[in-house]
Amino acid sequence: MAERSDEVKLLGMWASPFSRRIEIALTLKGVPFEFSEQDITNKSPLLLLSNPVHKKIPVLLHNGKPISESLVILEYIDDTWQNNPILPQDPYERATARFWAKFVDEQIYVSAMKVVGKIGEERDAVVEATRDLLKSLEKELVGKDFLGGKSLGFVDIVATLVAFWLMRTEEIVGVKVVPVEMFPEIHRWVKNLLELGVIKKCYPSRR
Amino acid sequence: MAERSDEVKLLGMWASPFSRRIEIALTLKGVPFEFSEQDITNKSPLLLLSNPVHKKIPVLLHNGKPISESLVILEYIDDTWQNNPILPQDPYERATARFWAKFVDEQIYVSAMKVVGKIGEERDAVVEATRDLLKSLEKELVGKDFLGGKSLGFVDIVATLVAFWLMRTEEIVGVKVVPVEMFPEIHRWVKNLLELGVIKKCYPSRR
Repeated sequence: MAERSDEVKLLGMWASPFSRRIEIALTLKGVPFEFSEQDITNKSPLLLLSNPVHKKIPVLLHNGKPISESLVILEYIDDTWQNNPILPQDPYERATARFWAKFVDEQIYVSAMKVVGKIGEERDAVVEATRDLLKSLEKELVGKDFLGGKSLGFVDIVATLVAFWLMRTEEIVGVKVVPVEMFPEIHRWVKNLLELGVIKKCYPSRR
Repeated sequence: MAERSDEVKLLGMWASPFSRRIEIALTLKGVPFEFSEQDITNKSPLLLLSNPVHKKIPVLLHNGKPISESLVILEYIDDTWQNNPILPQDPYERATARFWAKFVDEQIYVSAMKVVGKIGEERDAVVEATRDLLKSLEKELVGKDFLGGKSLGFVDIVATLVAFWLMRTEEIVGVKVVPVEMFPEIHRWVKNLLELGVIKKCYPSRR
């Protein structure tokens, strides 16, 4: 598995929340890696070769072997470097974490993406739909410091998409999708995230 | 983890390829389970209680604890009953299996669903797009008995969706999406699947 001579390279993009997840996981594990910023308007031969199916970032290259899809990469990192586990050990808790990770990507992200570029009533409807989904996350956070419980875990890393992408995008598009009055638990959780060294390192001076 | 007194119940539907995946995995592991056929037009209180977020089958109830999302359930089954492993042990091979499983659900299934209900040129375009995706699977099968290699694995179980749902749906909607001349490897793989006891048991007399 992990060896002394490990060569770890991340094909990513500074602005991508999917790429950031991988940075967070590697940083948490203390795995040194080279970050290679990619240009989506002009895809590099290495990216096309490494992810011929989707041609998308992030791609992790571990000793030259490529792994794609951020959730798959996170599991790979946890399987390979076993210190500071990201996923819980208990099978039921693992399943719960995987369930919420899928929920963030397949429901929240998909819905939030629709907010961008919409205006008027059409936008109001998708904002409402996104909030409905976020309520599940809000409920999950009651009584917890992190979605992973007392410390940062798999779902937290995945849901940084909400904390640092959606909650920044809303500033850019000019609509508050996650107002503090409606989502106090999510806002408390974002504050908890911002106190962590690994988050300060991977999301420097962005908020 | 698994105990003698295990109570395993599957909330599923006979016609759902997602539900069938769970039946295959439990059968492969020799886990006795109760199958509870659900009516999507009249959702049972147990289903609504067990999967309040999506209200969808399949749901696995293990000693009363619910797990949703077929890929998550498959991982849970593999984590809990460790005989006859479904996922490979090597982290890189595990990542590759997870990548293809996502590909089947997020690309092939989504594209194939668009074929249903479309007609004329519009249908031709989505059939073409689905075939383009299936070409990746066709390539993966070259020189292999199964997507998992020499025996049935995670990706095979997931891709029974192609073998027994898509390749039956095409008969119903009257368009050949996966013709044998174009996809000889996929057709050879379906034959291999049909020779397995576990498939004969979970997909009886359907083809």
